Amino acid sequence: MTVAANAVTLPLGGYRPKHFLLSVVDRVATITLNRPERKNPLTFDSYAELVDLFRAAAKDDSVKAFVVTGAGGNFSSGGDVHEIIGPLVERDMPGLLAFTRMTGELVKAMRACPQPIVAAIDGVCAGAGAIMAMASDLRLGTARTKIAFLFNRVGLAGCDMGACAMLPRIVGQGRAAELLYLGRTLPGEEALAWGFLNRLVEPDAVLAAAQDLAREIAGGPTFAHAMTKRMLEMEWAMSVEAAVEAEAVAQAVCMQTKDFARAYQAFAAKRQPVFGGD
Amino acid sequence: MTVAANAVTLPLGGYRPKHFLLSVVDRVATITLNRPERKNPLTFDSYAELVDLFRAAAKDDSVKAFVVTGAGGNFSSGGDVHEIIGPLVERDMPGLLAFTRMTGELVKAMRACPQPIVAAIDGVCAGAGAIMAMASDLRLGTARTKIAFLFNRVGLAGCDMGACAMLPRIVGQGRAAELLYLGRTLPGEEALAWGFLNRLVEPDAVLAAAQDLAREIAGGPTFAHAMTKRMLEMEWAMSVEAAVEAEAVAQAVCMQTKDFARAYQAFAAKRQPVFGGD
Amino acid sequence: MTVAANAVTLPLGGYRPKHFLLSVVDRVATITLNRPERKNPLTFDSYAELVDLFRAAAKDDSVKAFVVTGAGGNFSSGGDVHEIIGPLVERDMPGLLAFTRMTGELVKAMRACPQPIVAAIDGVCAGAGAIMAMASDLRLGTARTKIAFLFNRVGLAGCDMGACAMLPRIVGQGRAAELLYLGRTLPGEEALAWGFLNRLVEPDAVLAAAQDLAREIAGGPTFAHAMTKRMLEMEWAMSVEAAVEAEAVAQAVCMQTKDFARAYQAFAAKRQPVFGGD
Repeated sequence: MTVAANAVTLPLGGYRPKHFLLSVVDRVATITLNRPERKNPLTFDSYAELVDLFRAAAKDDSVKAFVVTGAGGNFSSGGDVHEIIGPLVERDMPGLLAFTRMTGELVKAMRACPQPIVAAIDGVCAGAGAIMAMASDLRLGTARTKIAFLFNRVGLAGCDMGACAMLPRIVGQGRAAELLYLGRTLPGEEALAWGFLNRLVEPDAVLAAAQDLAREIAGGPTFAHAMTKRMLEMEWAMSVEAAVEAEAVAQAVCMQTKDFARAYQAFAAKRQPVFGGD
Repeated sequence: MTVAANAVTLPLGGYRPKHFLLSVVDRVATITLNRPERKNPLTFDSYAELVDLFRAAAKDDSVKAFVVTGAGGNFSSGGDVHEIIGPLVERDMPGLLAFTRMTGELVKAMRACPQPIVAAIDGVCAGAGAIMAMASDLRLGTARTKIAFLFNRVGLAGCDMGACAMLPRIVGQGRAAELLYLGRTLPGEEALAWGFLNRLVEPDAVLAAAQDLAREIAGGPTFAHAMTKRMLEMEWAMSVEAAVEAEAVAQAVCMQTKDFARAYQAFAAKRQPVFGGD
Repeated sequence: MTVAANAVTLPLGGYRPKHFLLSVVDRVATITLNRPERKNPLTFDSYAELVDLFRAAAKDDSVKAFVVTGAGGNFSSGGDVHEIIGPLVERDMPGLLAFTRMTGELVKAMRACPQPIVAAIDGVCAGAGAIMAMASDLRLGTARTKIAFLFNRVGLAGCDMGACAMLPRIVGQGRAAELLYLGRTLPGEEALAWGFLNRLVEPDAVLAAAQDLAREIAGGPTFAHAMTKRMLEMEWAMSVEAAVEAEAVAQAVCMQTKDFARAYQAFAAKRQPVFGGD
């Protein structure tokens, strides 16, 4: 099946992106931001192509998890000063809003795609790069990871691409306020202690560790994983009572998958289940 | 006063449950899941009876706090593979939804009863057992506590009984995602560091410590405690502005209790207050 | 410009409060609760004047950040037992509600003013004092800071002035429940580990450290800071999807400020930006 979703062709394994690298192995798609000499900044073009890719992923059955990383020892320095900030200073309001909505669209596309996303974060992870890390489901870092929500450093507000919603839920309201008002760097060790990072790995092993994790997820009950991801989003601002009802329906649906029966049969036969994602 | 609430008779001190143990001492009711040879799994029957008990508790003035624990060095292994998962694999959708709604009903009943609930968690605390721990107000564990949201291991989604709502609010969104996608075990020490557990205690002391805590709570201003519990639920998905207004009303109500006057009089007389819960 | 907002005159630098100290230096206003012999309790009068001050601050362009602190080695012991609790015991319901709504108004005024608020918290920080700390944006403490939500000790509920909404978002739902049901003291070190405090400082340096931080904030893009503060509030109970849209608009507005252009021009000229707050 090869379907065009905007410019992106499916399955993703056959797509060659223009503004980053993409490889698909064992149903895990790895996206590598690849302008290492500039610490992998985002540009108008790479934002747009990332949105298209994650939107297309919703229809790609052959990819079951994503890894997002950056080349050359850094994750991403965020929106490029010359290629993004410079032009924005000249734009009128409709043009500015078109930009901020496009960047927000990236977060929405990452949260809406059914595949869990694992970020492998070495070195600089700043601005929109830090947002992309937050829009991922799991985050692996290194001792030299440097996370910074440095919007205030360029004269802007901390409320960028959903940061004021996501960051407080990950690290708590007080720590989020500190990072957003001060733009200070959060080093890897502290990010681990705060629960921003899930694990610290050696720099030369962080990508492989993220891919291992993604492969583990891709080998699990992926229909159910997609439901978990959807409900984590849906229940963000829902009462516990409503969430319990929503999950009753969602889990009942998962109980009609073959994966649920497979797991039971494997248990009864005292072997490991082999999931099919259906 | 002896009132039948479904099968449960009040006061709870006189009730003899069929599927777990119950004792009421000093206005603290201790529920012990008691199938230690199977690590205290939940069954269709024990779910239903637990729901009835917590629903009845809303009308029982003689119990002011709960302790939930498991016999034989484990909390609970969750839904029994043979007695629950096996039959579910055969059920049709109405039957599945009836089950998931009943399990969710347990969470709702635990959150709705006015008594704070303290969980004493030694050993295995898995699946629906981990959800019961989350539906409690306070959680004491031990160094050998092993918490696992292992729904994905049985082919299901992490969204079970409200987990995608509750777990992120307890440990943060990133750590919750890790536990729900991977189903990995969270040991006692780490659960303490993450704020999932409130305290670590020696295994042979954890039940007594939970009962001490419950007795302390039961000896406090219990009308006010019930209001605290209700507002923690009500404000889950409410703006700060609305929450402030809601609490103004709730606290004004508490200021008309005798306990408020008792505390003031005790302070003026330089003695400890004796609360009455009215 | 001198404008009367209730009793408060603008700019705040010219206002002499009756029930606490106020100084304005470098566009940072420092409020000092100043009844050290009683550990700086709040009274009917000081509540009302604080509300007026923070409401007036919304219109004061000359103050860009607040510091809140207490005199004599303590932050605040909360509502005064003799001057507040005593009279409340005698009040009827309309009178009680008038009081609880006035105290809640303080939280709303602190969250609504555009200036970020830094609390410098040494020693006792209890009851309504602990709420004032939470209603601040950043919190610095010391090794001898003692935070206590001791409402239950005076016969009341933990739901006071928005505590059941704010505390769980700062320290997590489980830790918040523990503090609210037990009223136990949270010492400085633990408060730092839990993310309630942003930093620990020596007692004789904590006020200066808070003022340095506030000065750093006041020297930043203050129009954008105010937007960050507003969005942190607005997105409290909003879905990520809606938050992303809200921030697209908010950030586009900030991109039309001069501060955004100033930062870009400074970057291009390889110098530090000088922000103007416009």
